[in-house]
Amino acid sequence: MKVVVKKFGGTSVASLNLMRNVALRVERALKEGERVVLVLSAMGNTTDRLIEMAREVSVSPVPRELDMLLSTGEIVSVALMSMILNRMGIKACSMTGGYHAGIITDDNYTRARIKYIEADRLKELLEEGVVPVVAGFQGVNENGDITTLGRGGSDTTAVALAVALNADRCEIYTDVNGVYAADPRVVPDAVRIPVISYDEMMEMAVLGARVLQYRCVDLARRYNVELIVKSSFYEDGGTVIKEVDDMMERSEVRAVTHNEDVAKVVIKDVPDRPGMAARIFRKLGDKGIPIDMIIQGVTKGDRSDVAFIVSRSDLQSVLDVADEVVKEVGAAGVSYNMDIAKVSLVGANITSDPSMPGKMFSVLAENGINIDMIATSGLRISCIVERKHINDAVRALYRAFNVYETGNE
Amino acid sequence: MKVVVKKFGGTSVASLNLMRNVALRVERALKEGERVVLVLSAMGNTTDRLIEMAREVSVSPVPRELDMLLSTGEIVSVALMSMILNRMGIKACSMTGGYHAGIITDDNYTRARIKYIEADRLKELLEEGVVPVVAGFQGVNENGDITTLGRGGSDTTAVALAVALNADRCEIYTDVNGVYAADPRVVPDAVRIPVISYDEMMEMAVLGARVLQYRCVDLARRYNVELIVKSSFYEDGGTVIKEVDDMMERSEVRAVTHNEDVAKVVIKDVPDRPGMAARIFRKLGDKGIPIDMIIQGVTKGDRSDVAFIVSRSDLQSVLDVADEVVKEVGAAGVSYNMDIAKVSLVGANITSDPSMPGKMFSVLAENGINIDMIATSGLRISCIVERKHINDAVRALYRAFNVYETGNE
Repeated sequence: MKVVVKKFGGTSVASLNLMRNVALRVERALKEGERVVLVLSAMGNTTDRLIEMAREVSVSPVPRELDMLLSTGEIVSVALMSMILNRMGIKACSMTGGYHAGIITDDNYTRARIKYIEADRLKELLEEGVVPVVAGFQGVNENGDITTLGRGGSDTTAVALAVALNADRCEIYTDVNGVYAADPRVVPDAVRIPVISYDEMMEMAVLGARVLQYRCVDLARRYNVELIVKSSFYEDGGTVIKEVDDMMERSEVRAVTHNEDVAKVVIKDVPDRPGMAARIFRKLGDKGIPIDMIIQGVTKGDRSDVAFIVSRSDLQSVLDVADEVVKEVGAAGVSYNMDIAKVSLVGANITSDPSMPGKMFSVLAENGINIDMIATSGLRISCIVERKHINDAVRALYRAFNVYETGNE
Repeated sequence: MKVVVKKFGGTSVASLNLMRNVALRVERALKEGERVVLVLSAMGNTTDRLIEMAREVSVSPVPRELDMLLSTGEIVSVALMSMILNRMGIKACSMTGGYHAGIITDDNYTRARIKYIEADRLKELLEEGVVPVVAGFQGVNENGDITTLGRGGSDTTAVALAVALNADRCEIYTDVNGVYAADPRVVPDAVRIPVISYDEMMEMAVLGARVLQYRCVDLARRYNVELIVKSSFYEDGGTVIKEVDDMMERSEVRAVTHNEDVAKVVIKDVPDRPGMAARIFRKLGDKGIPIDMIIQGVTKGDRSDVAFIVSRSDLQSVLDVADEVVKEVGAAGVSYNMDIAKVSLVGANITSDPSMPGKMFSVLAENGINIDMIATSGLRISCIVERKHINDAVRALYRAFNVYETGNE
């Protein structure tokens, strides 16, 4: 018998009526012979409301207490959903992520990582034909305190349970009907990608595609869990994320992604001595701030500029660290620019085709778009452009690389 | 060092501002050298809102799921309160009733009873100078599932923790400033009772004084925990509930209580054979319906009426059972009357003074109030009167028995 983990996000359970729709979907799946494990997020904007209350009482709430508070949102969802299912005659049992579903995490409150899962009770329930309804986003540490898994945590819960239960697949239901080859708000006729590899999906997540978090795809990849992203409001569509065998020699552009949540920071006139860059980026790394696209400028005499891209939400922390660094290494100062955005081409082996980068830069140039910084990896080519040009850049690249053809394979 | 359990009800933590007031109270107590354990209810009408949602998805929600749902209300309170305390520089730690505070209950969801408390973690926290902030109203059964303790459950949590921690006293903060000798809405100058015995307080709880549940006072009595009821909005006042030594020969009226949540049920023309009454009341007992003031009427031939008083909320269930009984025993039928109310005098040894009942009945008669039924116990004399006369009855009795003098001792 097939075991399928189905995860529904906040917009899919935002009201009792929407919850009833989810329950009907579960009913259909059971009739088709699936054994279903449900994972739910908190209803609608519940988590935001709770965070707001916490901020109202404390500028920096104790992380343990914040997790205790936030965990309640998902518990409300699973208790109500279990009532709905039972009312329909479907045996269901709500479960907190930690004590009941057995998700044991480390001690990093607000961004805990799963250490292991004690899935005995889940397995028993499945054996008995009961639908476990598991609160996503949460676990419990070995001290018995409630933790939360951070952004996209419920997706991670779903994939981790799929691993622990050796499930046939993990379905992520959300408010979009899969992964698109470009943001449909920018490219209205952007095609849905029916199948994509883990690696490509991870690259897209890093580059700003919001549909799945990197971490969740990474986990699925490592344990080879077939992931499906689909809309909770439509039957058809969706994107399958799995190991794609035939991509070894393929070098197509699968998607054009863009991200406006970026800022550029420049540390000016850094003395050109060994270890200077290490000093800067170790400090930022210690604070857990992810850095993208580091460029050390052309040396002017014995000094050079160091520029890099960070997320806008991290900018203040980065500037604080940068100020320290300036003093320590004797640089001239720090500047930043928020008036930028990042556009990327994503595809397996994309940089193994030597014509790709040149073609990308030409397309942007032809459209009068200046490139400020460039970064490449095996799976992507990214350019920093002026913010006001970002939508034009996405559209021009989408057309020029015929993404709709490769997407619709 | 003194250990004090302080419980704050829903109206005392209905907003973040009110929560800050509670935190200030805790701060003062700590400065005065107390070791504080906080027990909180859900904020304001949270529990009602959750119940409403549950009713919306199911007429009779699965009790296990209902408890899972309701438990979240108190968790939100304790997490926020702990943040507030920590922000003030007071070390505090929020705790769920079950997993963290160690309250282990039986399996009776929605009205679980506490079996024992594993208080090790609470004791450790107190040793370390941390304020445990415990979610009231909830526990966990031996299967690891969340249970709730039913009406007045948070008070029970507080008293039970006081027992487990061998606390010096248990303070119940609420929206009234103690226990009054009559309902101040009926008798505006009713006096506050400074000290009252457990037995008297239990009798008052049974008779409809809402300030404390019978169960919580009973628990305090059995373990000799000194209880204090006071307002969370004022400093002074309050009522101490404890073993009162000097009451052996005292026979004063401590309070006049009344209750409008009553209905009278009459089973008519019950055959006058042994075991008939047992048959009726065993059935009601099996359904957990409490009965008050049973009266078997004067026999007419070989048949007699059986009348008794129940709570209005139980009336429908009682009538269902009564209909069955009528058929089984061959009675003539069932009638009921909701147009009644109960007024009672409460005081230790009250019925040992032979003049008391007569005086009570005279006072009512002098005020033109008919008595429908009478019941007495060692601690009370109750009369059923017409509903429209209940306020007059309370006022007349309050004046006639000089309750203000005994109250204000």
